Amino acid sequence: MTLKMGVIGTGAIGREHIKRITKKLSGGTIVAVTDVNQDAAKKVVEEFSLDAIVYPDDKALIAAENVDAVLVTSWGPAHEQSVLAAIEAGKYVFCEKPLATTAAGCMRIVEAEMKYGKKLVQVGFMRRYDSGYKQLKEAIDSHLIGEPLMIHCAHRNPEVGDKYTTDMAVTDTLIHEIDVLHWLVNDDYKSVQVVYPKKTKHALAHLQDPQVFMIETNSGISITAEVFVNCKYGYDIQCEVIGEEGIVKLPEPLSIVTRKEAKLGVNILMDWKDRFIDAYDVELQDFIDSIKETGKPNGPTSWDGYIAAVTADACVKAQQTGEKERISIPEKPEFYE
Amino acid sequence: MTLKMGVIGTGAIGREHIKRITKKLSGGTIVAVTDVNQDAAKKVVEEFSLDAIVYPDDKALIAAENVDAVLVTSWGPAHEQSVLAAIEAGKYVFCEKPLATTAAGCMRIVEAEMKYGKKLVQVGFMRRYDSGYKQLKEAIDSHLIGEPLMIHCAHRNPEVGDKYTTDMAVTDTLIHEIDVLHWLVNDDYKSVQVVYPKKTKHALAHLQDPQVFMIETNSGISITAEVFVNCKYGYDIQCEVIGEEGIVKLPEPLSIVTRKEAKLGVNILMDWKDRFIDAYDVELQDFIDSIKETGKPNGPTSWDGYIAAVTADACVKAQQTGEKERISIPEKPEFYE
Amino acid sequence: MTLKMGVIGTGAIGREHIKRITKKLSGGTIVAVTDVNQDAAKKVVEEFSLDAIVYPDDKALIAAENVDAVLVTSWGPAHEQSVLAAIEAGKYVFCEKPLATTAAGCMRIVEAEMKYGKKLVQVGFMRRYDSGYKQLKEAIDSHLIGEPLMIHCAHRNPEVGDKYTTDMAVTDTLIHEIDVLHWLVNDDYKSVQVVYPKKTKHALAHLQDPQVFMIETNSGISITAEVFVNCKYGYDIQCEVIGEEGIVKLPEPLSIVTRKEAKLGVNILMDWKDRFIDAYDVELQDFIDSIKETGKPNGPTSWDGYIAAVTADACVKAQQTGEKERISIPEKPEFYE
Amino acid sequence: MTLKMGVIGTGAIGREHIKRITKKLSGGTIVAVTDVNQDAAKKVVEEFSLDAIVYPDDKALIAAENVDAVLVTSWGPAHEQSVLAAIEAGKYVFCEKPLATTAAGCMRIVEAEMKYGKKLVQVGFMRRYDSGYKQLKEAIDSHLIGEPLMIHCAHRNPEVGDKYTTDMAVTDTLIHEIDVLHWLVNDDYKSVQVVYPKKTKHALAHLQDPQVFMIETNSGISITAEVFVNCKYGYDIQCEVIGEEGIVKLPEPLSIVTRKEAKLGVNILMDWKDRFIDAYDVELQDFIDSIKETGKPNGPTSWDGYIAAVTADACVKAQQTGEKERISIPEKPEFYE
Repeated sequence: MTLKMGVIGTGAIGREHIKRITKKLSGGTIVAVTDVNQDAAKKVVEEFSLDAIVYPDDKALIAAENVDAVLVTSWGPAHEQSVLAAIEAGKYVFCEKPLATTAAGCMRIVEAEMKYGKKLVQVGFMRRYDSGYKQLKEAIDSHLIGEPLMIHCAHRNPEVGDKYTTDMAVTDTLIHEIDVLHWLVNDDYKSVQVVYPKKTKHALAHLQDPQVFMIETNSGISITAEVFVNCKYGYDIQCEVIGEEGIVKLPEPLSIVTRKEAKLGVNILMDWKDRFIDAYDVELQDFIDSIKETGKPNGPTSWDGYIAAVTADACVKAQQTGEKERISIPEKPEFYE
Repeated sequence: MTLKMGVIGTGAIGREHIKRITKKLSGGTIVAVTDVNQDAAKKVVEEFSLDAIVYPDDKALIAAENVDAVLVTSWGPAHEQSVLAAIEAGKYVFCEKPLATTAAGCMRIVEAEMKYGKKLVQVGFMRRYDSGYKQLKEAIDSHLIGEPLMIHCAHRNPEVGDKYTTDMAVTDTLIHEIDVLHWLVNDDYKSVQVVYPKKTKHALAHLQDPQVFMIETNSGISITAEVFVNCKYGYDIQCEVIGEEGIVKLPEPLSIVTRKEAKLGVNILMDWKDRFIDAYDVELQDFIDSIKETGKPNGPTSWDGYIAAVTADACVKAQQTGEKERISIPEKPEFYE
Repeated sequence: MTLKMGVIGTGAIGREHIKRITKKLSGGTIVAVTDVNQDAAKKVVEEFSLDAIVYPDDKALIAAENVDAVLVTSWGPAHEQSVLAAIEAGKYVFCEKPLATTAAGCMRIVEAEMKYGKKLVQVGFMRRYDSGYKQLKEAIDSHLIGEPLMIHCAHRNPEVGDKYTTDMAVTDTLIHEIDVLHWLVNDDYKSVQVVYPKKTKHALAHLQDPQVFMIETNSGISITAEVFVNCKYGYDIQCEVIGEEGIVKLPEPLSIVTRKEAKLGVNILMDWKDRFIDAYDVELQDFIDSIKETGKPNGPTSWDGYIAAVTADACVKAQQTGEKERISIPEKPEFYE
Repeated sequence: MTLKMGVIGTGAIGREHIKRITKKLSGGTIVAVTDVNQDAAKKVVEEFSLDAIVYPDDKALIAAENVDAVLVTSWGPAHEQSVLAAIEAGKYVFCEKPLATTAAGCMRIVEAEMKYGKKLVQVGFMRRYDSGYKQLKEAIDSHLIGEPLMIHCAHRNPEVGDKYTTDMAVTDTLIHEIDVLHWLVNDDYKSVQVVYPKKTKHALAHLQDPQVFMIETNSGISITAEVFVNCKYGYDIQCEVIGEEGIVKLPEPLSIVTRKEAKLGVNILMDWKDRFIDAYDVELQDFIDSIKETGKPNGPTSWDGYIAAVTADACVKAQQTGEKERISIPEKPEFYE
């Protein structure tokens, strides 16, 4: 059995996923595409020699009988409508982040999915599929370091474009830490406070960079998360979990070791696309496999998407107020356990 | 277009490849299997729900019209006959090492392939597809370290079974270094000498372990290759290339970093299967892709298989004589450039 | 010329310094000792075969004509009086931390020294003499990483005794970071806030452990300093300075690299005494040398002692209030430039 | 009690030791100096304000009644005569390498010392005092890695002057490995063979560089020692001991860790003088202390100097013959146990 998939949005990320499913992964095939730019959609079909129909819009694509699952890779504001339509049609959905642009939107999806009565949605938080994070998770779950007490992490980009604004440090950057950290320690967030260190000269006038987020979880774990998007030296993701018995830390990406010109060291990635390239593959393969094997996706749920939205809202508020802001996440519905 | 593949030999490695092609990779499908144990072949078809015919023997499988490519994963002594038959039938072949059990056998394959007039055969030397080795190769090819002068490498297993004999240090273990090192520095081997260090108490009486191979290339590169198959502490592959301007070294496998009980460090793999697990995937995907895109496999050739056999023969002779033995590799036919 | 030194306080640290000066360093000799426990003082003279007189108290020792310099290694509350007496007598002073137990006491010493008109006092903050911190300082001063923006550091002990109280996380532990960090970035502190993460089960009921201090400098550098004194796994000092162009980090202490039992790693120290053992030597040798060569000590000054006291007071207040507390450090007197 | 020392040879290394003893170490003082260039000797006395007499030659210096110990830091060919004279006079000797320029000369010293009946001589092999090598030794002695089976080591210099000849790879460079390795594994050498890899373009015409020495010990430990004196990238000393249960390796010299311009790494030393700078201090302090505390030096003995000479002779012969050459070391006299 092959999972027949329709893609809503054939921009950069949509094309990447189409290529992945067509050329690299097993068990899925693209049978339908759509894009607000119909020519773009047609071009993708040609480029990858897809045996796929170009639909006029998301509704038509979702309605197509041979579409088992939908990939939502349109721009953020369009996500909610497509996901809700897919749920109504009982189709599986893989939705790139954000699930919806507001917490309320995410909650509408959660409620629709619960009403439908079956988990259909996976949100594209790929870090949970990264080998390093998976090893961290295994170590923590196996009590290697005892109870986690603190997390120190950093998300650094060499530079960002001039459209990148201070709140995007949360919604575009920290959002990945927000998803992966609560999963890592199996806890929910309680409060957040933001500190603005001295600003780098490499940031444009409108952008606060770097930023430090102090986040507290319900059980009291203290997270210090640095976001620094003009760090110049590389794309660098750090995560260290300090527990009662020891510490575990993300590995550096695999690199040969060089001795040259009085330096001994490894290469740091410059392009974020290279950092989680394997995770994207594993993520989509798991989406395909888990649907085929268990009848539902196995990855980050709508509820996780909702948590990310609520937490991001609080982080953005904390950026604005300078105060410690409460993160109010309701109890997780049994449906998502 | 899907590459339709037949598998000759459904033992451990055959089943791994079937699983890989069926569950993980893109663009290939298993349409035929055979094994000297027909029940085993049938069981594999069931286990993976293959839409595949079980053939009575390799000849029948190769003759099947819908078989585009053959995977030879039978036991070593049977390889040559299957590969020759496939070439005669003009079918693509992916053959696990060894290509043939003798250099003469490898040469018969080389000659058959040249006579057929088209590259059909890829030998299963997966290290060339390992991310670390690929980074080494890129660094050397880009002259990062200038001319390579020396290579220090080590191949260590935690332990081996009682069937493992002294010559298998060459034919089962060093054989991977033999393939990957000449590719890495784009050179051929000239001589080899073996030194037997003090024997570990963990080796059985009949086995010399560890062993050190001193290999010289045509251009004068000096290789010291340690083989140590009862090293106890882990499965560990080391490779360091010393050039005129600097040194490059294989990375350690990706592992979280732990601080616990007065130790700071990473995990070492114990199981060799984990070390090159990604390389196996990339290797087979490349076999499928390159055939589909260019009409011929892109990986290690029959000629590489022949080089490995000739070099291994000299290494085994050097084990027996204790002398420096010449490695006589003829000039590479233009066909294989 | 040999610097003739008198030691006030022959407890553990006093004896260590006596041993150091007598057995390891050059250019200094112990000619006088005193201790509230006169027997202890006599015993030390015997043990190290010192050619030294045992004085009844600090005043008598300081008054001794052949005493050029005084080492104050008594218990903290006694420091101020001895240092003031030494200044009045125009004797050099090496005073172990704290210079005085209150900021006011430190200021009295500062004023006495300025009144005397010559720098006489060095405070025993040894980290500035540690090879790793010196390398950090050189890197920062040479603009290797551009302007420093953030510092992430950690001070971890395997465990502490039951007398260790929450405020001692500041006065006994963080105090070393307080001294070394402002020196490292050549800046003064402005505010501090304390976060209490989930408490480790290894801490006694009365002790908050771990703690995270968020400290801001005048120029806006943001410091996150973790103090964790029951971390179990080792004595571990981490310090990472993030600048506009890159990052520098303290090295791990020198340790052989071991591969054994599926682990690759280095040893972590368990005893804090081993961590800065070389720094203590360099510190005291520098005290002796700089007095002999330039007529005044070269290390941390009374002013540095005062800064540490003011900052520690604010940190302890921040522990109690949970609020961001201002650190008010007056402008540095020209005398100390 | 202060050890009163006379220095024979006030060239670069002599001055370094004088400075060390005068400015850094404890318990020794320079009371006498001599040099074939008397002006140089006088200048040193002035430069370091020594309270020392300048003697016309080594005999006169050795005869001086107030000289307890002699430092032989003249040029190599003069060592034997000075050491023999010192032994005859019953004076302690610290002799820089080589103890004598021939094995026969070393043996004459050994015999003289045995005849005198007391250990007086220490040879300046400083690596045994290096923190890294000491940790290796402790690990091996404590059976952390079981029986040692192999040693892989490398001695690399960025470059050498035009006076450096092929045999100096042994007598000036490998000589340090020769001393430290047999001490490390408590074994004697049995044979050596030399392999010349492809020559670096950075070596002058008359110099073979790099070179690989295959050395075997009596118990069968196999040593591969690379000497590469124009490696360009740094001064780099590597040593890895492979045992039955695991591996231990020298640490890299202490360096801050930098992230900058897509590289993560540490600094490599360029100047050999920096590598063992601490070891020189510890070595001489130990010479002084052990004489004062036990009446005899504690470091590398005349016998070690003899072993080095015999082994170096065999290595040079192996360079010339290309054959495996026997290293014939007589049984160690009980006197040196």
